[in-house]
Parts: sequence; structure tokens; C-alpha cells
Amino acid sequence: MTNRVYNFSPGPAMLPEQVLAKAASEMLDYKGSGMSVMELSHRSVWFSEIMDDAQHLLRELMHIPDNYRILFLQGGATMQFLMAPMNLMNESKKMDYVNTGAWSKKAIAEAKKLGDVKVVADSSDKTFSYIPVIDPYEIRKDAAFIHITFNNTIYGTRFTALPDTDIPLITDMSSGILSEVIDVRDYALIYAGAQKNIGPAGVTVVIVRDDMIGKNANLPSMLDYKKYADNNSLFNTPPTYAIYIAKLVFEFLKKQGGVEAMEKVNREKAKMVYEAIDNSKIFCAHVASEKDRSLMNIPFFADSEEINSRFLSEAEQNGLLTLKGHRSVGGMRASIYNAMPLEGCRKLAAFIKKFDSENA
Amino acid sequence: MTNRVYNFSPGPAMLPEQVLAKAASEMLDYKGSGMSVMELSHRSVWFSEIMDDAQHLLRELMHIPDNYRILFLQGGATMQFLMAPMNLMNESKKMDYVNTGAWSKKAIAEAKKLGDVKVVADSSDKTFSYIPVIDPYEIRKDAAFIHITFNNTIYGTRFTALPDTDIPLITDMSSGILSEVIDVRDYALIYAGAQKNIGPAGVTVVIVRDDMIGKNANLPSMLDYKKYADNNSLFNTPPTYAIYIAKLVFEFLKKQGGVEAMEKVNREKAKMVYEAIDNSKIFCAHVASEKDRSLMNIPFFADSEEINSRFLSEAEQNGLLTLKGHRSVGGMRASIYNAMPLEGCRKLAAFIKKFDSENA
Repeated sequence: MTNRVYNFSPGPAMLPEQVLAKAASEMLDYKGSGMSVMELSHRSVWFSEIMDDAQHLLRELMHIPDNYRILFLQGGATMQFLMAPMNLMNESKKMDYVNTGAWSKKAIAEAKKLGDVKVVADSSDKTFSYIPVIDPYEIRKDAAFIHITFNNTIYGTRFTALPDTDIPLITDMSSGILSEVIDVRDYALIYAGAQKNIGPAGVTVVIVRDDMIGKNANLPSMLDYKKYADNNSLFNTPPTYAIYIAKLVFEFLKKQGGVEAMEKVNREKAKMVYEAIDNSKIFCAHVASEKDRSLMNIPFFADSEEINSRFLSEAEQNGLLTLKGHRSVGGMRASIYNAMPLEGCRKLAAFIKKFDSENA
Repeated sequence: MTNRVYNFSPGPAMLPEQVLAKAASEMLDYKGSGMSVMELSHRSVWFSEIMDDAQHLLRELMHIPDNYRILFLQGGATMQFLMAPMNLMNESKKMDYVNTGAWSKKAIAEAKKLGDVKVVADSSDKTFSYIPVIDPYEIRKDAAFIHITFNNTIYGTRFTALPDTDIPLITDMSSGILSEVIDVRDYALIYAGAQKNIGPAGVTVVIVRDDMIGKNANLPSMLDYKKYADNNSLFNTPPTYAIYIAKLVFEFLKKQGGVEAMEKVNREKAKMVYEAIDNSKIFCAHVASEKDRSLMNIPFFADSEEINSRFLSEAEQNGLLTLKGHRSVGGMRASIYNAMPLEGCRKLAAFIKKFDSENA
């Protein structure tokens, strides 16, 4: 019927086929309402139910404690580079950041416009191919927070140990959220753009501990977590359709056995691809240390640009799409979020082996 | 097959059935890509084409001159209540506003956090049931701009004459855009949340004259028009699916004969509904003056709350939905944007007549 492909895009990325099929079937008439979800008032009983379900499902999937609020915002993680410091800043205006790549750098640049930023650990010396050790003594005692990028989409690293500190920890979890079990209580604030593991671009999930809300008064309304928290994310019209798709994705994840089950499959998927790369003669993974390797994004490359190009074009002919690496690393990158089936990774691993044996 | 209703919601609102059917048919496989539009990278050739088409179509429909940029942003008109003053403000920090209702008041409140706001005209004395006369001498010569709300969704008024001034004019056109012919050159900046006449909630259209971009340096990136203009609205991941639906709506409008044709139908639709109200014995329109009447939102009411309630519930039984008025006006409100068919207004007008004759 349809000619679906394996899409290794870093985001917007694959969505579960069941979710898309459900959305298509409900497009003209949502549950007998005679309206599309796009046409529902955000104050209607139908949309209220969607919003409630989305929140309850996410809370259940991530075991989010009651003293955390779930907000649905707009503007992607990039808007949170601004909102997080603006909302959480204290009088010292000191904010500590760990620099693990392009997205960390962007977060740091926005925070610098607002206050006194210290980079307490940095892996730029080796093209961000590892997660740096964070010396607890580098973290300032009067800093409002320390910020990490949980999973680095471009460089393919991820945190497996968190900084040892009492300072509130905040994280950009865009490309890691819902892919493995984490303890929400480790964080004061988690934010994530949807277009990797949640849903379509255009909605941002913010999970924020109660005591982090309302710390700074008189903020512009649209930048104030309190406005969203006090109005159940309906301070103004939210991106209703994107929230609906997120709800369908959460339902899908629950049916699969939740984040625990997804993590198991994700580890298997990543292992297949890394093994194919590590066992090849011509390809090399950007991240050497297994501990630091992302389960979601796997950058790899051959030394020869000619081989990289040929790999990409032959992969595409085999239904393996959007594998081109980010220009700052080059080569290839396989983004294998929750919606990438095991079979897609099996096909990619087999293709890497075949290409290697033919070209080594 | 489907049980589509006439949905008089003020927004999110009806979309053309053809647009929804097209979106449903392309949901799992966009033009043979093997991917949903939601899954396309925002840097892909497929999405680039969608973005280009959306811009070209909107430029054509609204006759937007070359010295204006079209931007697709997030956060709704409410985010523009912040961004517009932040980007356009001058050293005097003086900004002049016309207060014609709830949305104007919200825009004014956000601007007050940034500078010196003067309300140069106001219609609050009569529950915003008319458009006030703007005395040109009230507009400050060193104000950065004067702001109007082109169409007032809640109170059902609209501007048919613009302030006589050389100060840059900016407008919230959320509920009026694309519904009637306007001259873009009258404005320095037009912004509009999509969920009335453009597409789904979650994308905001900004039409801004070149010389208004980059006036203020060192703004937060996500609040800076220049960042979006310099990156063709791809500074970060845009709300791709919402832009795609907007493009389908623009195509639909072009097929109908453009804004000129829509205005003709919209005038006919509004006339039918106003006539039914004006000719009734029990209903009264909130806005008396024909000159000030919105073509998009028609608030009306009976003196008796019992009659209002009964009207709403009987209307619903007849497939005429979401007619409840905003709490600040009460009674009913018929929002009849571009996607509301003539037949929907005919049915509503007939229902008003029938209800009136049975209850007068």
C-alpha cells in the first residue's frame, strides 16, 4: 500500500506508523464530534480530555512525581535556552553550564545575554566526542543551577552519570526523553522539543519542579512558567494538534510496555549498529567510549569522502534515508529514536557489513 | 460517510474539508517520499518546497510587496504582544496603542513591561461595541509605532478606516487576515495567529517591512525578527506540519479566487446572519454600527439567559456548534471565518428566524 521508508533523520524524525494511521483516520471527524482535532476549541471537552490524557500518560511513562508540573509550550528547546535561565535565575545571576556540543553552546550563548555564565566542564578539545568529567568544586555554590545537554544529537554522546552537586540540575533532554529510564527527581527542570521522541515539531515539553515556578516576578507572560502552570498550559491557545499527536505517541509507548521496554529495544538497536561500525574495516564511530555513547544518535564515517558519499547514495537506494551526518562531524549519522523499528536497525547494520566487505 | 458539523468556534476554527481530506490522504506517505510531512527534516527538499510554496502563495493572495518579509513563528499572537514592541521599540520607548477589547488590553499589558505606553483611543466605555475615533493629535510624534487590533474576535468589531499618521502602524490581524482585501503597505508589521483563517494553532504569520527588522541589537535569539528573517524562518525547527496545513489552506483560497473572492462571500455570509439578528424581535447584535461590524465574529444575545441557553442547545441539536458567546459579552457569537461555508451561515440565519418566530 504505502511505501514507508526507514528515516534516520535527527528530527523531525520517524513517528510510529500506528500513530500516523490513527491520526489520518480521525482527521475529518474526531470521535464523532464532526470536527478535526485541528478544529476543536482548546476549551472544548474533547480537547480538555486530550490534554489531560497527554499529561497523565507522560506522568505514568516517566514516573513523574506529584511535585512536578508538566507544561506544553511552543518554540522548541531553543526557546527554553532563554526561558530556563529567565525563570530560574537568582540574584547572583550566576549560572553554570556543561559544554558538550553545538546545542550546549547555543544554550550558553542565550544565558550569557542574561547573566554570569561559567562553563564548568567542556569537551570541545576532542570535537565533543566524549562526556567531560565534572569537578564538583568547579560548580559555584551560589549558582542558580547547572545545565547539561542530556543527549547530544550532533556528536552522539549522552550523560550516564550526573554531576555530584546540590545545585539544581536542569537539562535539555530533547533527543533522549522517553528513550531510557531516568529518575526525574534528579532534575529541577527537564525540557524537550517534541520532534525526536514525542511528536511533531511545534510543541515543547517542560517538566518543572514546583519550587522552580514563580521565582522571578514580572516576566513577559509568554516567557513565564507560572503563567502556563496556573492555566494548565492554556494561557493562550496551545499547539493543539501537536499535543494530540504527542498523546497518541504516549499511548503507543504505553502499549509497547513503557519506557522500560523501549530502553531494552533501544539498547539492542544501538548495539547492532555500533557493532557493525566497530567490526568494519572502513568505518569508525565518532564516540569511542561505550559509556558515553548515545543510544539515539550514532555518528560514524569513513576516512574517504568519496566512500561516505557512495555509502549515502547506496543506502538511499536501499530505503535507508536521511543518514547524512551533521557538517561539524561529517560522514554519516543514524538517528534511531523510539519510532525506528528494530528491523530498521537490523537492515542498517546488515547494509554497513555488506558495504564494508565490498569496499574494504 | 463523515458527520461534519458547522462549527462556529472563534478559534481553533473550521478548516476547509478539502484541506483535511488532502492532509489525511498524505499522512503516511507525502508525495512518494515514504514519510509523513511530520517526519520530514525541516532541511529536506520536500519541506523546503512546502515552505517556499507557503510564502509565495501568501504573498500572491495578499499582494505583499517585495520589501516585506513573511516569517513563520511560534507562540501565537500573544507572543507577538512581546516581540513586536521588543523589535520595533526606539530610544524614546514610547509606544501608542488603541484599546478596542480584550486582546488589545493584553497587548498593552505586555508592552507596558517594556516601555512607555499611551492609549490614544479607547472604546471600553460601551463594552467595546464600536471602533473609537483616533484623534491624530493624540499620537505622539516620537512614538515608535501605533498598534491596533484589526478585528476584535470577542466584541465583533473591525477597523474600516486606519489612523491618519506617519507613525509606523502595526496590527494584530489574527481574526481578520485573508478574509478581506487590505493594503499591506498601510502597515509596518502585521501578525496573526493561524488558528482562525490560516491553519492549525501553533504557527504565527508575521509580515514585516524590511526597515523594521534589526532595529534593536542583542535581543534573545528566539525573540528577534532578524534571526528568523536571516534564516528563512529556519533559525530553529519551525512547526513544520502547521506550515504544511497553512500551505494547503492558501492553495484552497487561491482556487476559490483569492482574497477578493473570499471577501465577496464573507460579506454575503455576514449580511445573512446580521439581517436575521436585526430583523428578529428577541435578539440584538452587540455592535450596532454597520461600519464597525466584523465580517468574521458576530456576537448577539437575547435579554433572557434562559432564551440564550435554549437557543444554544437547540442550535447544537441542529448541527450548529460552538455558538456560545465569550463570558465578557454573554449570549452567542457566530465566528464565520473563510472556511465556514455559505451554507452554514444560511442554516444559522434560518435557524435564528425560526427560533425568533417560535419564541417572540
